[in-house]
Amino acid sequence: MSRADRVAARLAGHDLDLLLVTDLVNVRYLTGYTGTNGLAILGAQTRRFLTDFRYTEQAEAQVTAGFDRETAPRELRLGLADGWPSGPVRLGFEDDHLPVRALAALRETLPGRVELVPAGGLVEAERAIKEPEEIAAIRAAAALTDEIYGWVAGRGVVGRTERELAITLEHEMRLRGAEPAFASIVASGEHGAQPHAVPRDVPVARGVLVTVDIGARVDGYCSDCTRTWATGPLPDELAAIHAVVVAAEAAGVAAVRPGPTGREVDAVARDVVEAAGHGEHFGHGLGHGVGLEIHEAPRLAQTDETPLAAGHVVTVEPGVYVPGVGGARVEDLVLVTADGHEVLSGTTREHGVLA
Amino acid sequence: MSRADRVAARLAGHDLDLLLVTDLVNVRYLTGYTGTNGLAILGAQTRRFLTDFRYTEQAEAQVTAGFDRETAPRELRLGLADGWPSGPVRLGFEDDHLPVRALAALRETLPGRVELVPAGGLVEAERAIKEPEEIAAIRAAAALTDEIYGWVAGRGVVGRTERELAITLEHEMRLRGAEPAFASIVASGEHGAQPHAVPRDVPVARGVLVTVDIGARVDGYCSDCTRTWATGPLPDELAAIHAVVVAAEAAGVAAVRPGPTGREVDAVARDVVEAAGHGEHFGHGLGHGVGLEIHEAPRLAQTDETPLAAGHVVTVEPGVYVPGVGGARVEDLVLVTADGHEVLSGTTREHGVLA
Repeated sequence: MSRADRVAARLAGHDLDLLLVTDLVNVRYLTGYTGTNGLAILGAQTRRFLTDFRYTEQAEAQVTAGFDRETAPRELRLGLADGWPSGPVRLGFEDDHLPVRALAALRETLPGRVELVPAGGLVEAERAIKEPEEIAAIRAAAALTDEIYGWVAGRGVVGRTERELAITLEHEMRLRGAEPAFASIVASGEHGAQPHAVPRDVPVARGVLVTVDIGARVDGYCSDCTRTWATGPLPDELAAIHAVVVAAEAAGVAAVRPGPTGREVDAVARDVVEAAGHGEHFGHGLGHGVGLEIHEAPRLAQTDETPLAAGHVVTVEPGVYVPGVGGARVEDLVLVTADGHEVLSGTTREHGVLA
Repeated sequence: MSRADRVAARLAGHDLDLLLVTDLVNVRYLTGYTGTNGLAILGAQTRRFLTDFRYTEQAEAQVTAGFDRETAPRELRLGLADGWPSGPVRLGFEDDHLPVRALAALRETLPGRVELVPAGGLVEAERAIKEPEEIAAIRAAAALTDEIYGWVAGRGVVGRTERELAITLEHEMRLRGAEPAFASIVASGEHGAQPHAVPRDVPVARGVLVTVDIGARVDGYCSDCTRTWATGPLPDELAAIHAVVVAAEAAGVAAVRPGPTGREVDAVARDVVEAAGHGEHFGHGLGHGVGLEIHEAPRLAQTDETPLAAGHVVTVEPGVYVPGVGGARVEDLVLVTADGHEVLSGTTREHGVLA
């Protein structure tokens, strides 16, 4: 079954005849189209793809999986007045993405017998389980991230500014044919106490922790990997923070397999952090799915009851952030396999000293 | 008057008591906040700003203009159950941005007497007219783009791949303290016939046209500048394409001043292209506003009836794209002044040969 077939098979369970897919990541997932204006409509017997004249050629080259390609005005909804099955139609739409104004405009365009029904998340649910070719792309992105970590380690970090490190490693990534999957984080010393630190024009000092969080995008698919190094002998407090994060990460990774919920895996790592007295310093979830988007389903978090399943690709990334002192985070990218897991990140997590 | 004051002054004309601002660019414009979770509510007597605990410290440092800072759950709407004026309230929301699901969730949270009214575009209308400090940032971003063009010209382009050129010039931009405002375009030879060409792993040849479209972001504000060079003596057809685009661009820039509509300025440049027989090869609008976003109000396009006004910053960027042959686009960033305009792009548009 194609991706579109699998999504179409979900529609009956939601009492829908058709699904209107407007989120461009979802459109790409279903059709292969990577342009910036396009939509898809699918159902048991329906595979429509619409774009405007600027992308007609691109759509001919990219759009596959049995979709009929149509050229519409740039405001694509204007191409949706016709082409509907006869009789009443229940048309799902992505209410988690579609702006209120766009829905109102759709209502003006569609025949009255086409009922628009909120139905966001159906494509995302399918995207969470990766196909072999998707895993191959994520694996390549993870390998490239490893390569960049090797490059960073070989060049050294002490005395370079956080910002210089971030931009030069991203440039190295691009020279190797990939794009950064997100803005790289390089956070040293006290700045490491911010989970989403923005790199500063401040040199990395000796004898501190430096957290580097980077990812590459290869063939559209992301990787995500965080390492925290000591830049020399550490004060005991920082060494202890680093050690507990490494231990929590190892425990979290070990818990990844089909069956447990995101909450349960989160708890395994969180327990290690809490036992060390740092529970209040771990203020985010344990991890998230990775694919065409850097954050997607499933989540590993205290509020998540989704059971892990084979084909999920998730990060495991506990952190400890102590204001005024510093922080550490260690993150691996992990594939859930039929009987356990495979760590896709190759760089060792026991990464010791890097000056 | 502060930005928030000016937006608040627009509310009465739309029969609104308050405006809920959820688009993060608009939130930044009004409050100074640059984090990724925040919202603002404003009215004649109201200046509320909400974020979650992760950004409390950042908000304290950034949020100004008289806003009261509140910390809410990560799902910020949960912080909106209270704090409303007594009696019926008409609350505008950004219907052009807010997803349908988010509106439904808001309706569940807010007291029934708070009526949610579609009111998108009010902040964007204010953003279109730039303040002196915004113009200064755009000017700095434009100057940096000029600097990068100088760097590219000094290094040469023939024999380098489009992609190598794009990534190295972006790296130079970052080394100078800015970020690219958008993915750079480098398109040579026949590839130049695509307005939104993605750089290829193909070397730039001698004796073709190469179009480079880049922008920098400085203090949040964007620049945007396109140059097309000949990489050696050109066939007559390409030389003619280049010449008509240069002429159309000059005509378009000359027409920029307070008063004419976007449609009228577009027509001035389009007439030059059409007179040269290339009307069908100029398939996009003449230009767009630039500010915190690379594309914002106003538009210079055949469908736009907004009159230009002092403080607008717009691109003027005609192009001619001939499939199978090549293309050219020339783009300047132009400030509308009280009595005319000022070109913010410094690189000359008669940019001749670059090998």
